Amino acid sequence: PNSKLPDVKTTIFTEMSLLAQQENAVNLSQGFPDYQPDENLIKYLGEFSKKGHNQYAPLFGIKELREEISRKFNLQNQVDYHPDSEINITAGATQGIFTIISAFVEKGDEVIIFEPAYDCYEPTIILNGGIVKNVKMLYPDYEINWNEVKNLVSEKTKMIIINNPNNPAGKILKQKDIDELIAIVKNTDIIILSDEVYESITFDEKPHLTLARYPELKERTFVVGSFGKLLHITGWKIGYVCAPSDLMNEFRKVHQFNVFCVNTPAQFAISKYLQNIDDFKSISTFFQTKRDYLKNALKETPFQLLACEGTYFLSANFGAISDMQDKDFCYWLTKEYKVATIPFSAFYKDKTDEKVIRFCFAKEQKTLDKAIEQLLKIK
Amino acid sequence: PNSKLPDVKTTIFTEMSLLAQQENAVNLSQGFPDYQPDENLIKYLGEFSKKGHNQYAPLFGIKELREEISRKFNLQNQVDYHPDSEINITAGATQGIFTIISAFVEKGDEVIIFEPAYDCYEPTIILNGGIVKNVKMLYPDYEINWNEVKNLVSEKTKMIIINNPNNPAGKILKQKDIDELIAIVKNTDIIILSDEVYESITFDEKPHLTLARYPELKERTFVVGSFGKLLHITGWKIGYVCAPSDLMNEFRKVHQFNVFCVNTPAQFAISKYLQNIDDFKSISTFFQTKRDYLKNALKETPFQLLACEGTYFLSANFGAISDMQDKDFCYWLTKEYKVATIPFSAFYKDKTDEKVIRFCFAKEQKTLDKAIEQLLKIK
Ligand SMILES: CSCCC(=O)C(=O)O
Ligand SMILES: CSCCC(=O)C(=O)O
Repeated sequence: PNSKLPDVKTTIFTEMSLLAQQENAVNLSQGFPDYQPDENLIKYLGEFSKKGHNQYAPLFGIKELREEISRKFNLQNQVDYHPDSEINITAGATQGIFTIISAFVEKGDEVIIFEPAYDCYEPTIILNGGIVKNVKMLYPDYEINWNEVKNLVSEKTKMIIINNPNNPAGKILKQKDIDELIAIVKNTDIIILSDEVYESITFDEKPHLTLARYPELKERTFVVGSFGKLLHITGWKIGYVCAPSDLMNEFRKVHQFNVFCVNTPAQFAISKYLQNIDDFKSISTFFQTKRDYLKNALKETPFQLLACEGTYFLSANFGAISDMQDKDFCYWLTKEYKVATIPFSAFYKDKTDEKVIRFCFAKEQKTLDKAIEQLLKIK
Repeated sequence: PNSKLPDVKTTIFTEMSLLAQQENAVNLSQGFPDYQPDENLIKYLGEFSKKGHNQYAPLFGIKELREEISRKFNLQNQVDYHPDSEINITAGATQGIFTIISAFVEKGDEVIIFEPAYDCYEPTIILNGGIVKNVKMLYPDYEINWNEVKNLVSEKTKMIIINNPNNPAGKILKQKDIDELIAIVKNTDIIILSDEVYESITFDEKPHLTLARYPELKERTFVVGSFGKLLHITGWKIGYVCAPSDLMNEFRKVHQFNVFCVNTPAQFAISKYLQNIDDFKSISTFFQTKRDYLKNALKETPFQLLACEGTYFLSANFGAISDMQDKDFCYWLTKEYKVATIPFSAFYKDKTDEKVIRFCFAKEQKTLDKAIEQLLKIK
């Protein structure tokens, strides 16, 4: 029998990571670090398990971790979220996003998303009977045309999904974008899902403007975050969702029947680790060094680099190399030059192909060097 | 704004565990062990994290763990599930159940469940626009009236959810039940969701009959399992789903956008631990000792005990003590006698109240003794 998503395929990340493995290629496709997280984090994981933290956590998540998230928002953004009523731990950010959409989007509801869009939004909306209204951010700057958004908004608009910093485009929202968004949602019941999993990774002193900073937005917004991205532990699968208590109450009704609760020793390890951190800026510095290293090297190739204001992805146009379709080009690059990447068309409903591919630079120096050595051979 | 589950409350497990805490009562309500799992399991968790297994697992789950599940099915039931195409790791059994229902149940689809029913089925069906058709297993034996099931089946029946052993009733299916089920689903497209999270906990030499043993059922069945229950690690949140590849393909389409993948170090630790186990019978013996201990003690109280063929829950009628509603009785018992339990009415759509409450006996000796000491005071 068919499911409600008959046409969906395996995600592009799984496809390209498998291909990388088969081809013994350097894997700059799927976004994950290939180095270890801080050894204290690992030590704490073992310790908390040993100390007896191996049974169900509360459905909200453990208090200690919710308090650290609250403290972090305050520290970075002077924003208040109450640990008990406004914060919930999730089995990764994806599970938070899936649960938010499943809780609110009903048959016929419209949801506005911005393309290129991270690949989980659209199928989750469709699974729930919603209708995707997509706004294309235009190559090569990926600015948002807010007039287009304004024209799409109607009585049927249930939700707008923002991804800031944007994966894959590496774009961050400016104050001007925020002002436009505020003007659009004012006096509506639109819920905003703000996927901010790369919030701590912005470059060149550009600030990340969490939507939670703006009371007119915060009151209607779910902010989604990820410790996988923040702490280099994508495999621990711990994320979080913050929202005003009326929205959070509704979220929890669904969350409790989706996963009920989340890995206990990992929650304790992360909360203890965060207690010793008072400044999250070093993560941007860490990744900016990697971005600049890859950027400088790729300048010597025929790739045309796009801006990367945030995230750990750098993108590039390959038009000077080939006129293949972007996905074909990714296969070719993996097979011929042993470097796996992600084609941008995967992030568009209509498979828009601007000849752009995405490199993940959350990799150790020698991995980047290996990839660079290969890419420099391209004529 | 309302979610799609406006009337849902916090689960009874969260409610009663919180009350137990507030009242400083012995917590025999929510089902989780209060003792540590095998120390090797804990050791492996720390070791695999240290060895570098901290990034995304594949969406199917790690191969090593899928292979152990396949081996276990073969060992216990002479059943074959292919590790690659027929097994998937989940963030706990609940996430597996939520994903199966979300993948298949659409507006107007009917789903048959048996009451008393574990509390996550109904809201998940409703969230997806499905219609719950409930069959009551009748107090005090909780036998299934298969004629009633037959009469409920129609063109609209999308799914039947079986929970075997049944939580909370502690009932296991007999060959006769299986034969009836086979007769009912033959020549239909009905999907079966078989929640078998307590499969390794059956008593008095009664065998657990997994639906996977019967080809006429296996071809249409999702079997859901739980390492939380099997290995006393409810807080690790690792479960699994097995199904023929056509069903599994559809499951994965949704699973990949719900959680994508599951905690990596926990998957490795469990798979290594299972490699050394060739016999899962000791877990039944372990729990049967606890069941019998509690049972014998409660015989000295006015509680009327019900049969407990499997699971780690023992239930009892309190009619000789009080004519309160069962939930009120649970509150009273927690406050006055400092023992927290779960009222059966929570497992019925219409809150059927047979004056039955559920005791969890997955507790260490001294916890059981503390509870027993209190319960013996009841007149
Ligand atoms: C969940 S796999 C995808 C990881 C990721 O965020 C990306 O590669 O964009
Ligand atoms: C997920 S909390 C509930 C645990 C459990 O299975 C039960 O108490 O029945």
